Amino acid sequence: MGRAEPLARNEAGIATAVASLKQVLGDRLQTGQSIREQHGHTTTWLETQAPDAVAFPQSTDEVAEIVRICATHKVPVIGFGVGTSLEGHVNAPAGGICVDFAQMNRILAVHPEDLDVVVQPGVTREELNVHLRDQGLFFPIDPGANATLGGMTATRASGTNAVRYGTMRDNVISVEAVMADGTIIRTSHRAKKTSAGYDLTRLLIGSEGTLGLITEITLRLQGIPEAISAARCSFPSLDAACQAAMMTIQYGIPVARMELLDTLAVRAVNLYSKLDLPEEPLLLLEFHGSEAGVAEQAEAFGSISEEVGGSGFEWTASTEERNRLWKARHDFYWASLQLKPGATAVATDACVPISRLAECVTRAAAKAEEMGILSPVVGHVGDGNFHMSPLIDRDDPDQLEKAEAYIDWLAELAISMDGTCTGEHGVGQGKKAFLKTELGPALGYMSLIKTALDPDNIMNPGKIIPA
Amino acid sequence: MGRAEPLARNEAGIATAVASLKQVLGDRLQTGQSIREQHGHTTTWLETQAPDAVAFPQSTDEVAEIVRICATHKVPVIGFGVGTSLEGHVNAPAGGICVDFAQMNRILAVHPEDLDVVVQPGVTREELNVHLRDQGLFFPIDPGANATLGGMTATRASGTNAVRYGTMRDNVISVEAVMADGTIIRTSHRAKKTSAGYDLTRLLIGSEGTLGLITEITLRLQGIPEAISAARCSFPSLDAACQAAMMTIQYGIPVARMELLDTLAVRAVNLYSKLDLPEEPLLLLEFHGSEAGVAEQAEAFGSISEEVGGSGFEWTASTEERNRLWKARHDFYWASLQLKPGATAVATDACVPISRLAECVTRAAAKAEEMGILSPVVGHVGDGNFHMSPLIDRDDPDQLEKAEAYIDWLAELAISMDGTCTGEHGVGQGKKAFLKTELGPALGYMSLIKTALDPDNIMNPGKIIPA
Repeated sequence: MGRAEPLARNEAGIATAVASLKQVLGDRLQTGQSIREQHGHTTTWLETQAPDAVAFPQSTDEVAEIVRICATHKVPVIGFGVGTSLEGHVNAPAGGICVDFAQMNRILAVHPEDLDVVVQPGVTREELNVHLRDQGLFFPIDPGANATLGGMTATRASGTNAVRYGTMRDNVISVEAVMADGTIIRTSHRAKKTSAGYDLTRLLIGSEGTLGLITEITLRLQGIPEAISAARCSFPSLDAACQAAMMTIQYGIPVARMELLDTLAVRAVNLYSKLDLPEEPLLLLEFHGSEAGVAEQAEAFGSISEEVGGSGFEWTASTEERNRLWKARHDFYWASLQLKPGATAVATDACVPISRLAECVTRAAAKAEEMGILSPVVGHVGDGNFHMSPLIDRDDPDQLEKAEAYIDWLAELAISMDGTCTGEHGVGQGKKAFLKTELGPALGYMSLIKTALDPDNIMNPGKIIPA
Repeated sequence: MGRAEPLARNEAGIATAVASLKQVLGDRLQTGQSIREQHGHTTTWLETQAPDAVAFPQSTDEVAEIVRICATHKVPVIGFGVGTSLEGHVNAPAGGICVDFAQMNRILAVHPEDLDVVVQPGVTREELNVHLRDQGLFFPIDPGANATLGGMTATRASGTNAVRYGTMRDNVISVEAVMADGTIIRTSHRAKKTSAGYDLTRLLIGSEGTLGLITEITLRLQGIPEAISAARCSFPSLDAACQAAMMTIQYGIPVARMELLDTLAVRAVNLYSKLDLPEEPLLLLEFHGSEAGVAEQAEAFGSISEEVGGSGFEWTASTEERNRLWKARHDFYWASLQLKPGATAVATDACVPISRLAECVTRAAAKAEEMGILSPVVGHVGDGNFHMSPLIDRDDPDQLEKAEAYIDWLAELAISMDGTCTGEHGVGQGKKAFLKTELGPALGYMSLIKTALDPDNIMNPGKIIPA
């Protein structure tokens, strides 16, 4: 598979670094095959490339020590949260040391009056939200999986709530990071805004561990809304559902979530979560605000959906009903696998200007059908972002080849529509091949930055920047 | 003055570059003393350092040609919008070529369905909003001055609306830029979000022309709200006004603007704009939403201000009354100069976590009084950002020295409170001295990026990065 090419290994350096790290970390450096493979293998469809050892630091200083040892011996360092990334971000194509943040999982400070929180990278978003609940606060970004906040920061994650609250880009105030030579930096203070020089915070967000390891994160929080309601509406076609989504954004209805599921995706969700949603293209929404506000929003959406032929519009303020619907949406990945037992889901992540969404989704679905690929569609359509999920048997070279051809075709379609091959999953290994087409000469400046900040290419080598 | 140190000039290179540029641009390269001085002199209190020539390109290709000529001869290139920056950004401490974007002022494309617009850098925010009005759209960022969108992008501007809509960081989708060797890049496509590699868009926003010249900008737009209302409330002390601001944010009231004026600032505004606001600390607010929504917000704010001893709370949906108040706020800079005829206002720009705001503002005002400095205060207090404006006679060395000591003291106070010396004005020449204290080792990584992207240091030298 061309996407996860192995890279040259520095065998001597790796052996020396592993020995040194063992002295520093003792049992918190693991080299057993099974643990190493778990740290290469993730929810990605790409093949596993295990690291040579897995380190479990407990402090920023320990992370700095690990990086210094790896820098001395020119050995790769790869950050690891819980392994929910989809594009091979945690693979170790040149071997090296995986830094697992599982033991750096403390919530360091909540500042309710400033609506921010300081966390270590190993805290998951669900852990954070459980911790915050009593204070009437929440952290809105929700990529579906219960990812770590370090991983979410490193990959600029977003997901269902981004249409209202933005992505990790918008919700991280500051990070502490260990850079390629072991220097510890803090990108900014805790003030809500700053114009003090280059935006290193945003540079590290989405850098996928290729510039530094994120060891502490200051996040913006939101007050839990007074009222939350959910709504759903079915549509006669993907096109109609996308039109409704576009109009909702244009009219400025501040939806908190707006998710598209196509007929296949609805069927999968019905099967897996024992629901009886009409098997037609569906929009699933959530509204946040005051009691009066959410009613106003739901009704405004109801009128829009009626205009484009929507049916079965329902909204509810019941927490139970709402949680059931969103749990089903979040379980989509597992649900989709039921459509073809034994299959692997291949991730795609097209994102286009919303005016092009209907055309892009419709063409993507038609192309999958034409190629004989079973591929449900879900999408964060308020952001113009959707995921076709071709279901394939990875052991069948024919299916694999077809899926790869489809991924390429879809990435290029999105790019040709002034969009991107990756709206939220990141580049990792899987999307590297498309960056030249998408970014042109801008890619060269990413390489210059990478080389300047990590001259020996030890930070997560083989990701983002083409060799 | 230590802040605007002259740098070594490359006389031979400058002479050759000016001659070459004259051939390319003809009359659109100006070298007269008065025009050169206008392009160094701005609203800053720092002394003028004029460029050697001012170029007026009409296209991105011409900008690239200018930069290539300057790169060949290692001559500084300094971007210029309308010169409203406050920290000496457009000064030319090593001479060189000023690139004035006045003739690149076209609105290239409005995409109402995508809520975005593509503009050239010389378009001002007022021009853009006049152009958009018929389509029910607006661009929210409002730094007060009628700045160009290129300048606002390059300095990561924000202002009164940032509390609701964010800063330029949050409202620029993509930029086209000419880099230090003349290469033209586009940082991303027009999709609303992307995770395709390093965030070059955010790296260029706020880079103050030190990494590249911004030649095209894609901006997010907002629908004009159904209803807009304004409110004002007076408070017995700065502390009480800051408490009200903090509680308003904590309660999640989505204020569109929330401005503080201290007693002196109110007096200045009364004099200049012929108003009769009570001469006490004042909060001035604006609410955006539905008819019901803005009433709900205004009432919620009314209750909060009552709790902390506010008086004279009034709100109005009248456009005329609202515009009169905000016009007065926007004219504050000119109004403040009336407090001390012949004086120059020195810009400060502290920004702290909102929990520290009351203490920071109160101490800043007390210190000014203690030092015998006349200094009104205005602030974008929802963001924890405020401006003390010491009024000084620049020709009096004693006053100048005192003002400088005060600026230093205030910058250090803000930094010590986990804040920044510059919330929105940028670094330029004026704030360079504080970055080491504020950013520590992170500053070294800014230097590495600068050197990687502009090895000959021709892009706006002497700004942001300490020599």
